[in-house]
Amino acid sequence: MMEMEKAIADRKSAVWLAGEIASGRVRQDKVWDDFESALEKHEPTVKSLSFTENVEARRARFTAADASGPLAGLPVGIKDVFDTYDLPTAYGSPIYEDHQPASDAVSVACIRAAGGVIAGKTVTTEFAYFTPGPTTNPHNQGHTPGGSSSGSAAAVAAGIVPFATGTQTGGSVIRPAAFCGVVGYKPTFDLIPTIGLKAFAWSLDTVGIFAQSVADAAFLTAAITGRDLMPSGEEGNPRVGYCETPMWPDAEPSMREAFPQMRERLVHAGFTVTDMVLPEIFEKAHEIHRVINDREGYFSLSHERLHHADKLSSILIAALENGATYSAYQYDEARQTLKQARLALTKLWRDVDILIAPSVTGEAPKGIGFTGNSAFNRLWTAMGVPCVNLPCGHGPNGLPLGVQVIGPALGDKRTLAAAAALADAVAGK
Amino acid sequence: MMEMEKAIADRKSAVWLAGEIASGRVRQDKVWDDFESALEKHEPTVKSLSFTENVEARRARFTAADASGPLAGLPVGIKDVFDTYDLPTAYGSPIYEDHQPASDAVSVACIRAAGGVIAGKTVTTEFAYFTPGPTTNPHNQGHTPGGSSSGSAAAVAAGIVPFATGTQTGGSVIRPAAFCGVVGYKPTFDLIPTIGLKAFAWSLDTVGIFAQSVADAAFLTAAITGRDLMPSGEEGNPRVGYCETPMWPDAEPSMREAFPQMRERLVHAGFTVTDMVLPEIFEKAHEIHRVINDREGYFSLSHERLHHADKLSSILIAALENGATYSAYQYDEARQTLKQARLALTKLWRDVDILIAPSVTGEAPKGIGFTGNSAFNRLWTAMGVPCVNLPCGHGPNGLPLGVQVIGPALGDKRTLAAAAALADAVAGK
Repeated sequence: MMEMEKAIADRKSAVWLAGEIASGRVRQDKVWDDFESALEKHEPTVKSLSFTENVEARRARFTAADASGPLAGLPVGIKDVFDTYDLPTAYGSPIYEDHQPASDAVSVACIRAAGGVIAGKTVTTEFAYFTPGPTTNPHNQGHTPGGSSSGSAAAVAAGIVPFATGTQTGGSVIRPAAFCGVVGYKPTFDLIPTIGLKAFAWSLDTVGIFAQSVADAAFLTAAITGRDLMPSGEEGNPRVGYCETPMWPDAEPSMREAFPQMRERLVHAGFTVTDMVLPEIFEKAHEIHRVINDREGYFSLSHERLHHADKLSSILIAALENGATYSAYQYDEARQTLKQARLALTKLWRDVDILIAPSVTGEAPKGIGFTGNSAFNRLWTAMGVPCVNLPCGHGPNGLPLGVQVIGPALGDKRTLAAAAALADAVAGK
Repeated sequence: MMEMEKAIADRKSAVWLAGEIASGRVRQDKVWDDFESALEKHEPTVKSLSFTENVEARRARFTAADASGPLAGLPVGIKDVFDTYDLPTAYGSPIYEDHQPASDAVSVACIRAAGGVIAGKTVTTEFAYFTPGPTTNPHNQGHTPGGSSSGSAAAVAAGIVPFATGTQTGGSVIRPAAFCGVVGYKPTFDLIPTIGLKAFAWSLDTVGIFAQSVADAAFLTAAITGRDLMPSGEEGNPRVGYCETPMWPDAEPSMREAFPQMRERLVHAGFTVTDMVLPEIFEKAHEIHRVINDREGYFSLSHERLHHADKLSSILIAALENGATYSAYQYDEARQTLKQARLALTKLWRDVDILIAPSVTGEAPKGIGFTGNSAFNRLWTAMGVPCVNLPCGHGPNGLPLGVQVIGPALGDKRTLAAAAALADAVAGK
């Protein structure tokens, strides 16, 4: 474990690496060799990739890439729910075991256009819901890396790739990022296009990023979207809203201890911290996430439900069956509740620039059969606002804990800047 | 032409047919035989289907279908931008000439689950943008059927199928419905899931329906979505807002004459008609449709742009290149304008139940190279509100004209009821 911590601390930032490559001080094939070494070393235990590929096939992608773009030939892990025209895409389901899409998902095409190289497809739970793959937590292989973006979180934590893409419909970016001790960034809903992603719940599915630092996450997202997202470092200290959220009763002892301690560190570091209590509507919004998630999932997976029900896991079938019980009226009402909560949220930004809340209930659970509780994530997914997981020390099992910085819709740049400003104090560095 | 009008008037409604089949008074294979006869008679000139299939392959789908659902084995045309697991899907582009998707689009899967049978894939313009296919207008083969849902509109107008699906990103349901003299229904944005549709502009793309009557359009949409949408006939007369819209200067002489004449007929039939002038924000909303359409198109077609640019039409390339010129800031601002316009629209519903506005600038243009002007459609697509095209007489060339009934977001049931109540007076029956 301590070795992993040291390895993480020693890693080169992707922003720095891209600059060194561009200026000719680091050779591109050195970066690729490092990636292959890390893969060889860690992949046998971490199992972050969704299928085995020979070195030559991977190397051919690297050689063929136009690495003159901002991503400068850096390897990027792609969650296996995104279509890739040259790599099989199974969506974590046996139904699509040998499926080869005809085209790239938009985010994948944009990564390639920016000079990124697809390092591999990373393990996802079944259709990004709960049934897990074989990936383990790089900090302790006896524990889950979280899900559904299991492979992306683990590959970044293990140092196999500098960054990777994921998706969040419930808690699938922020939760695994917290469990694996890396930065996870869930942008504003729709900031990174979802086209070419296997949909689960179209009004919740959000493309996100795993990286070693906030700057790296901003860097990759900027390269995909063409948006100006890099923190300048001159934004000044954000006004912090400390927010237990209505889900606080779900927090385990480790988080109950770590979260207020982090608050003290922020105050000590000179940040203005205001305790925030969310209005009642947010509890309702948290609860009705399920109505939208399950009913949209029921529709999205219609083909699979109707033609391949025998190849769906029982936990997924239960969710789809639950989705079928909600009427259109209940669904419309749930969306209306979300609208009201979003409006209520806009009012909070008068007093604070960002909120800080737990990312997870505690450390990664033992075993890899359950990807963990998404209680602290579903509300923020439903709000469509940017969230950034920051590592926040360790729990009693020596596994990472995480808190999330939450900002206003489309306020991604200042949310990232705030997260960058807070990262050291949050981590206790 | 007169023959076509008589044929249309003589057609059986799908709602009626489904009832007759369910009660055993009409045999299912009689319906399918009628479809094959109509196809044989009209398809050689109308060219509504995107590829040729032998009778046996089609019949096998009919035989295999579970026709015990509400759609009772009725044939449905599917615009060839929707994925089908058992039929090739080319999205109107040579890039995907032999493309066979792995699964059904959600709307297609739901149609099959409801007992509908896929009659065939219908001709779409290239990626549902402007470059047309071979389809002709059933009222006069020297004229365009409109686009982008050309084949679906023409197949319904020719009586080949009782209904068909389409999509509208600019004016691709309402415009071809008007040009072909059939009912076109663009529901509230997202009412019919877009999953499995080849996306062009994800915040505009709306799945819609072509049918012979408002009731038939409601019937098919209810079968897909599980929503209660059928007009009961007891809704009472809607308060009508007569609305030239800021696009009135684009109207041709035929529409300038027909639209106020329709107003007189409504008044004569006893409807309360209020003249409505839209606030200025709507002109701005109309204009910025292009920013969203072209920038999202630029992203959605990333793979095609990067790998198959030589197979894209010049008109599409021009739109994508235009999309690349808009900054994220301009895009975000455009979406903000739409939000404001949507808010302004909600205030209009205090005084009227629905608006009625032109569907098209005039009759279908001559030739099949240009699918017509979407000036009267883009605003309403951007507003995300339900629109129903109603046939409204004919222009000087003897071709159909159309007006659209526009209702509040998620007010689909009462918009359809209003359209049904107004249809005869609008048509001058």
